[in-house]
Amino acid sequence: MPQAPADPQRPDHAADPGRGGLTDAEVASLDAHWRAANYLSAGQIYLLSNPLLTVPLEPEHIKPRLLGHWGTTPGLNLIHTHLNRVITARDLDAICVWGPGHGGPAVLANSWLEGSYSEVYPDVSRDAEGMGRLFRQFSFPGGVPSHVAPETPGSIHEGGELGYSLAHAYGAALDNPDLLVACVIGDGEAETGPLAASWHANKFLDPIHDGAVLPVLHLNGYKIANPSVLARLPEEELDRLLRGYGHEPLYVSGGDPGRVHRALAAALDRALDHIATAQRVARAEGVLDRPHWPLIVLRTPKGWTGPAEVDGLAVEGTWRAHQVPLSGVRDNPEHLRQLEGWLRSYRPEELFDAQGRPLPQVLEYVPRGARRLGANPHTNGGLLTRSLSLPPLEHYAVPVERPGTALHEPTRVLGRLLAQIMADTAERRNFRLAGPDETASNRLDAVYEATGKAWQERTLPTDEHLAHDGRVMEVLSEHLCQGWLEGYTLTGRHGLFSCYEAFVHIVDSMVNQHIKWLKTSRALTWRRPVPSLNYLLTSHVWRQDHNGFSHQDPGFVDHVLNKSPEVVRVFLPPDANTLLCVADHVLRSRDQVNVIVAGKQPSFDWLGLDEARAHCARGAGVWTWAGTETGERPPDVVLGCAGDVPTQEVLAAADLLRRHLPELAVRVVNVVDMTRLLPKEEHPHGMSDAEYDALFTADRPVAFAYHGYPWLIHRLTYRRTGHDQLHVRGYKETGTTTTPFDMVVSNDLDRYRLVMDVIDRVPGLGVRAVPVRQAMADARTRHRAWIREHGTDLPEVTDWTWSGK
Amino acid sequence: MPQAPADPQRPDHAADPGRGGLTDAEVASLDAHWRAANYLSAGQIYLLSNPLLTVPLEPEHIKPRLLGHWGTTPGLNLIHTHLNRVITARDLDAICVWGPGHGGPAVLANSWLEGSYSEVYPDVSRDAEGMGRLFRQFSFPGGVPSHVAPETPGSIHEGGELGYSLAHAYGAALDNPDLLVACVIGDGEAETGPLAASWHANKFLDPIHDGAVLPVLHLNGYKIANPSVLARLPEEELDRLLRGYGHEPLYVSGGDPGRVHRALAAALDRALDHIATAQRVARAEGVLDRPHWPLIVLRTPKGWTGPAEVDGLAVEGTWRAHQVPLSGVRDNPEHLRQLEGWLRSYRPEELFDAQGRPLPQVLEYVPRGARRLGANPHTNGGLLTRSLSLPPLEHYAVPVERPGTALHEPTRVLGRLLAQIMADTAERRNFRLAGPDETASNRLDAVYEATGKAWQERTLPTDEHLAHDGRVMEVLSEHLCQGWLEGYTLTGRHGLFSCYEAFVHIVDSMVNQHIKWLKTSRALTWRRPVPSLNYLLTSHVWRQDHNGFSHQDPGFVDHVLNKSPEVVRVFLPPDANTLLCVADHVLRSRDQVNVIVAGKQPSFDWLGLDEARAHCARGAGVWTWAGTETGERPPDVVLGCAGDVPTQEVLAAADLLRRHLPELAVRVVNVVDMTRLLPKEEHPHGMSDAEYDALFTADRPVAFAYHGYPWLIHRLTYRRTGHDQLHVRGYKETGTTTTPFDMVVSNDLDRYRLVMDVIDRVPGLGVRAVPVRQAMADARTRHRAWIREHGTDLPEVTDWTWSGK
Repeated sequence: MPQAPADPQRPDHAADPGRGGLTDAEVASLDAHWRAANYLSAGQIYLLSNPLLTVPLEPEHIKPRLLGHWGTTPGLNLIHTHLNRVITARDLDAICVWGPGHGGPAVLANSWLEGSYSEVYPDVSRDAEGMGRLFRQFSFPGGVPSHVAPETPGSIHEGGELGYSLAHAYGAALDNPDLLVACVIGDGEAETGPLAASWHANKFLDPIHDGAVLPVLHLNGYKIANPSVLARLPEEELDRLLRGYGHEPLYVSGGDPGRVHRALAAALDRALDHIATAQRVARAEGVLDRPHWPLIVLRTPKGWTGPAEVDGLAVEGTWRAHQVPLSGVRDNPEHLRQLEGWLRSYRPEELFDAQGRPLPQVLEYVPRGARRLGANPHTNGGLLTRSLSLPPLEHYAVPVERPGTALHEPTRVLGRLLAQIMADTAERRNFRLAGPDETASNRLDAVYEATGKAWQERTLPTDEHLAHDGRVMEVLSEHLCQGWLEGYTLTGRHGLFSCYEAFVHIVDSMVNQHIKWLKTSRALTWRRPVPSLNYLLTSHVWRQDHNGFSHQDPGFVDHVLNKSPEVVRVFLPPDANTLLCVADHVLRSRDQVNVIVAGKQPSFDWLGLDEARAHCARGAGVWTWAGTETGERPPDVVLGCAGDVPTQEVLAAADLLRRHLPELAVRVVNVVDMTRLLPKEEHPHGMSDAEYDALFTADRPVAFAYHGYPWLIHRLTYRRTGHDQLHVRGYKETGTTTTPFDMVVSNDLDRYRLVMDVIDRVPGLGVRAVPVRQAMADARTRHRAWIREHGTDLPEVTDWTWSGK
Repeated sequence: MPQAPADPQRPDHAADPGRGGLTDAEVASLDAHWRAANYLSAGQIYLLSNPLLTVPLEPEHIKPRLLGHWGTTPGLNLIHTHLNRVITARDLDAICVWGPGHGGPAVLANSWLEGSYSEVYPDVSRDAEGMGRLFRQFSFPGGVPSHVAPETPGSIHEGGELGYSLAHAYGAALDNPDLLVACVIGDGEAETGPLAASWHANKFLDPIHDGAVLPVLHLNGYKIANPSVLARLPEEELDRLLRGYGHEPLYVSGGDPGRVHRALAAALDRALDHIATAQRVARAEGVLDRPHWPLIVLRTPKGWTGPAEVDGLAVEGTWRAHQVPLSGVRDNPEHLRQLEGWLRSYRPEELFDAQGRPLPQVLEYVPRGARRLGANPHTNGGLLTRSLSLPPLEHYAVPVERPGTALHEPTRVLGRLLAQIMADTAERRNFRLAGPDETASNRLDAVYEATGKAWQERTLPTDEHLAHDGRVMEVLSEHLCQGWLEGYTLTGRHGLFSCYEAFVHIVDSMVNQHIKWLKTSRALTWRRPVPSLNYLLTSHVWRQDHNGFSHQDPGFVDHVLNKSPEVVRVFLPPDANTLLCVADHVLRSRDQVNVIVAGKQPSFDWLGLDEARAHCARGAGVWTWAGTETGERPPDVVLGCAGDVPTQEVLAAADLLRRHLPELAVRVVNVVDMTRLLPKEEHPHGMSDAEYDALFTADRPVAFAYHGYPWLIHRLTYRRTGHDQLHVRGYKETGTTTTPFDMVVSNDLDRYRLVMDVIDRVPGLGVRAVPVRQAMADARTRHRAWIREHGTDLPEVTDWTWSGK
């Protein structure tokens, strides 16, 4: 009998069974379910046919490529089996986040056993034929992934990239007071940074308005090829760590199935009693102390019940069980014999009838209907999504009498809209704002009028806006903000993540995985659309003049635009009213990742609300009032812009051109929706060539001022006819602690440089342009001298307002 | 007197003074240094002139823009002051990583006080004139950043992006047995994922061969605008947490400077005694149990000694002290008065002589020479760098009799080279390999013949290759791997990070910061070049056919190529020998971030070692043996390729073209160094247009098969004359669990599709190409049918070898 990994020399030990002690019959039923799940899991990894082993196993029954992860699977099957029991016994509304997502076979096996799989995929029926399909499709071309994935019923969590299970679990539990979210955390994932940060998510979980999270730290001792840190900690050190995280740990450990069944059942009962008490104390008695939520540490052997040894080397209970324990089954008769023995050790004839249907004992504890883990509607969040009722933008828009004369802080204007949404969702509680301690810094603090910042720790008299039931999530971890919102939106609620632009790269990889999830789930008709994940990137590259180079990075847009076009959208609203329109749009959208980049510093208003609406609906358009076209002939030059600071510089450049070269026909084009620049064949928002040429012309010089890395514009437009005439200015990784205008000068994005670009590119300007060009160069020189002397920007820049129509 | 943040109602308490109790005179000297540092810090934030307050403060003495972070600064000054004492008293070789890097004024002030600043920047002399420059330059255009940065003497850590201090500290301590690395961790940083994961780095620190890390958790109670999680934990919970991390915590808490000086001195003495004992027990007595390393928890008020109240609101001891406590100094006489009172409260006349030089009492504990924290050579690692002595590649190269016939696993070949480097550095210990539990999976396991995997936990008989003194770092945290190697290379040693390609995005933001660090430090003549940070990205997008969509992402190359061209290099060696040449190159390089993408699966050898060397030296070149040019006329078409799988498909396409359209003059161009594609004006490795045209022609169709997102090639080449003729195939975010060849077919990168691309683009092929094109389309159809049936690739694909010259 294999032993638990960390204590091979000690007898099995477990939480005191206490209440919840099982009868032998109950253990037998649980064990039957577990064996069935293990059988079905191993079958998925190995069997191409002969699923019920009705004939002796032959090489042709074996898959040509053996793929999958056995090691974690029996433990996941055990947990699923026991969750079934408590869900049924307590009529729990529960879901489970399976952190060791490589254990896909386990979750698939359980879903098939409980029938939820066949409901979603009727061809994989709950009989021998369906079992055969279940086995064959696993990790097979045209089949299903080896990880828990969008294709897996009951899942909101892809297990391919480790680190996010616990954050997802907390995100799902927020504002779902009746929900229990179990979360299995494996040895490997527990070493990641995002998971390590997520332990403290319990400081943000309100026992009254939120549901409960029950972490199950499943230590089988190993990751891919190494022992794991937590599994090898001395027991008392692990215990201190988990208590330090604010949990009350319950330990279940062993390699004897009967004892582990009893111990795990007892631990689950204790944990659920503990949770019920904590919630009752908070909800009925109003006690607001943060509970020490329970946590289960489950130590069972890696690859438990699989081959103990293969080719003379220990496999069960070691890292060698991680993937496919017997790898040579098709060619090695001994391996084939071992596999058959292994599969038959589960006694499939006691688990399935002759038609391959699970026998009643196997299904004794399987919950019914929507209580099944594979059928809980929270895991198909679109089923539960209720649209936000968004207030009229008229209440928040800023009046614009003349463009480019009044200043507003766009994010502060947005903050008032968000405050109203917070107020309007006070009852339904289906909207959250998250940010790494930057909500106020990003000037969205109006939301505190409607709700507080979630906080379950003690408070001091000087604290402001902290609240047990607050729906603003502030923690200095972008990973946690992202993970919470992923879990929250995938379970059907709405959210916005406000983040410093440079540091959103911290979650690049999480965003990748979320986009992949959405791309895949969009193609599954049974998955209903969920609210989009929305980013407000502010404190952006051009206004990090005080924080300097480390805070300057506009590349998240590039990162996101590499991803599936059906999912990603990028918006660069140039002013406050366009920001409102874009925010309104993204909060109504579904199944997307929307990135909004907008400044928090005072910046010019360009468009009134009606104009802003029309402009945002088009995504890109000519600002006729800003140009000097007469309509009689094509423009001599196009000034393109995307982003608030580039728009300001382009408008200032247009101003200079109108004054200094009044006969030049200048067109100003502003782009809000970056994907409009793409060909329509490549993105649903893309423009046709005719549309593009109508904006930018096919043959005129275009001087484009872009918020981010300039080559992104080339990457989006290289197929356009006029691309050879396109010259882009943007951020070129030059920055330091300096003034706002010096930032644009340093990166050649300033108004003077843009005018010089125009003069250098428009043919036939002749001598009349020479002094203008010199004046621009002089202004740049003047800037440099002034800033060295005064440390501030030129008055002619800081005092500038739009002087045109 | 303000109190420590977390326990405002309790008296100051501290670790038992015990040995190290200070005399009143000693306290007075420490306090003088601390006050001087505080004065110099506040001066940097506020003063444009009048640095010694020789005349009453007037608005014109105040900077026009008030920028900086005061909140953390007095605590950092306190720690620096006390580190000076113990360094001097014990003649310690010590450095400090300042996690709250926003507290730049503190580190600058201390460097100026100890004289290291003026040695590096002689114009900022240690007198009144230099003090004036120190003040003016801070956060001033043309001056120095407000964070600790490369410009700061004694730093290896930019504090702009939080999360990496502790990993950097451990990286610096590895293989530096005589070094003490103090590491200050702030409230905010402690909430991040990377920092949370880094606590467990002590499980990888060998007390014999590595130095010590002394974390100082500096809890001033708040981050930007919120209390912090750790500061508000109940004391016993925090204590359990820190002990659970494997530390022995020592607490120092209070707001009375005299008491805190004594308590901190005592705690530091206890901690250093503890470290010395642990190292002696391990080194002299051979005891290999992991020590419970000490850790100091320092609770002092945020913004300590600054204004207690401003405009009726509490500032000192609250989050309001985070940045600039008095913001209206130039316009508000009351603020100006308060500032003057604040500055004079440090009694500058007791700290500096009339010439602005620090008085002897202030400098009593300042260490001498290289012992000063601002002058320790470990923080300017290039001073200590010793080049690796790399073995001849001939010993590791694979023989290539005919290209495209034999197969090797490139990373396995590289592993043997790395093993030799490990063996050759066994004494000097200046090379480490890091990977998130993937060294063996990535087939580099030959290194275990030369060294083990670092591991200080207990081992079991079944474990393999674990060793207390191992130099392979395996932890399932990309953040930790990255942070360790940053700290290791910045202190002058060499390293390689092997990572799954998709998951290296986890460290996107860390890589950003490291590239920014290197870009800045390259421009500082006093910073000597350090070894590059080298990535081996393997288990790449094309061979994640078993793990599926979540493991498929080639975008790290795009991410890195957005950054400073002088720092970044990207290599895609097409086979084993080119991988050896590239690895040899990057391990010799300095001050770069080198990304190598190479497969681990068996793939064809194309070039012998001599050819590989020549090809890699050029970075891109014509493979004449693979084409059908006669040299008499330009080619009809160019097949470009970059990456191992695309190269294989292009060679197979060339093979098909030679057989089916023998009269077509085909050129094959392989690109190893991606930056060669850039214009020479944009990257030091960039090609001139003439060079580019000589490879790709200016007017012939180019069908390019690229490893990653296809638009990257357009972004690199859009300025080239022949760009209109360039058609690129690559990964387009289409993937699942399937076969290797099905992956390339799904993304239209397969040999058949490439031949069709050629036929579609070469003019004048006429009817002779029609049946060839049809045959290619048929082959793709045949593939799809075969894979559905068999789950494997077409034999004609799996059996293919190069049949040309």
